[in-house]
Amino acid sequence: MQIMNQTLTTNHQDFQVTAYWLDSNQDFNNTRHQPVVIICPGGGFRYHSQRETEPIALKALAEGCHAVVLPYQLIEPDQMVYPTALQQLAKTIEWITDQSDTQKVDPERIVLVGFSAGGHLVATFNGIATNPELNTQYQLDSYRGHHAAVILSYPVIDLDAGFPKEESEKERITTDQRLWHAQDTLTKWAKPCFV
Amino acid sequence: MQIMNQTLTTNHQDFQVTAYWLDSNQDFNNTRHQPVVIICPGGGFRYHSQRETEPIALKALAEGCHAVVLPYQLIEPDQMVYPTALQQLAKTIEWITDQSDTQKVDPERIVLVGFSAGGHLVATFNGIATNPELNTQYQLDSYRGHHAAVILSYPVIDLDAGFPKEESEKERITTDQRLWHAQDTLTKWAKPCFV
Repeated sequence: MQIMNQTLTTNHQDFQVTAYWLDSNQDFNNTRHQPVVIICPGGGFRYHSQRETEPIALKALAEGCHAVVLPYQLIEPDQMVYPTALQQLAKTIEWITDQSDTQKVDPERIVLVGFSAGGHLVATFNGIATNPELNTQYQLDSYRGHHAAVILSYPVIDLDAGFPKEESEKERITTDQRLWHAQDTLTKWAKPCFV
Repeated sequence: MQIMNQTLTTNHQDFQVTAYWLDSNQDFNNTRHQPVVIICPGGGFRYHSQRETEPIALKALAEGCHAVVLPYQLIEPDQMVYPTALQQLAKTIEWITDQSDTQKVDPERIVLVGFSAGGHLVATFNGIATNPELNTQYQLDSYRGHHAAVILSYPVIDLDAGFPKEESEKERITTDQRLWHAQDTLTKWAKPCFV
């Protein structure tokens, strides 16, 4: 196994992902391309819970999947979460897709896993990135690759459903109210979801 | 997580182990000392199966245990497996014990896991190292630390039970016939075993 910290860039802004690449098993002269999970931890858009980064990656690795942890855009004094977090997720998928041969990843089996606030990102991405119109509107159409399925673990879905409590906090996540309600972004194009 | 390749020495002979150390979880300010498994892969005393090294370590890590893979002494043109492999296992336990504080390992929860030929090593070690008399005879008493339990997965137990077929091959594993029959090394002092 190789653990790789990689800096990626969207809109002239750097972010760092951590990839856990499984080795091919030499016993079988195995060159099979394995699935990969992209992990978006929870933390209320304020931090990234360490309980939902490497421990989740290890569960995936133990099942024969590569894993990439994405510490997506949080609320910052001068920046909202969206749309940057959506573009970071698209960029991460592109980065994985571009090295699918090198790292023996199956680009048709990229699965997004989101916990809590990270679940909001994944659910929203599943609606927006698969929608031919919104995909362009949110500038996700310039990235290569695509996800095959999503897994949501106690996700935040609707910002009006109890979290966050304060209106001002919702606006620090995004002032674009279409993104407040992940359920409303769902269309026939969205990929299968396990909740 | 940290992956560490470490050279250790017994009887002026180097061998290399691979350790997978879990990080402490900062979310809980967790300084709990976790168990560790030492993994002895199979391969008929002729090689170390990659199916039984890192994939097994990943299963342990996913359950919250540190893991150390021990590529023990194989049959070589000028060397038998035993007693060197026993001493390598003792040295690995000592190395782990000595850094239990640094790596947050519980030295009272060191578990030995052996597959096939590696199971013969672990079963034999469980008999010899816990026996106050044989412990000294096989020069295992100079090493610090001890194991708490063993796990045997399709182990070789008795070299007269079908593998190896050739008498000459048994003698390349060891000419010390006490070690041919792991079951006969068992005493009341042996640690609990899950087969």
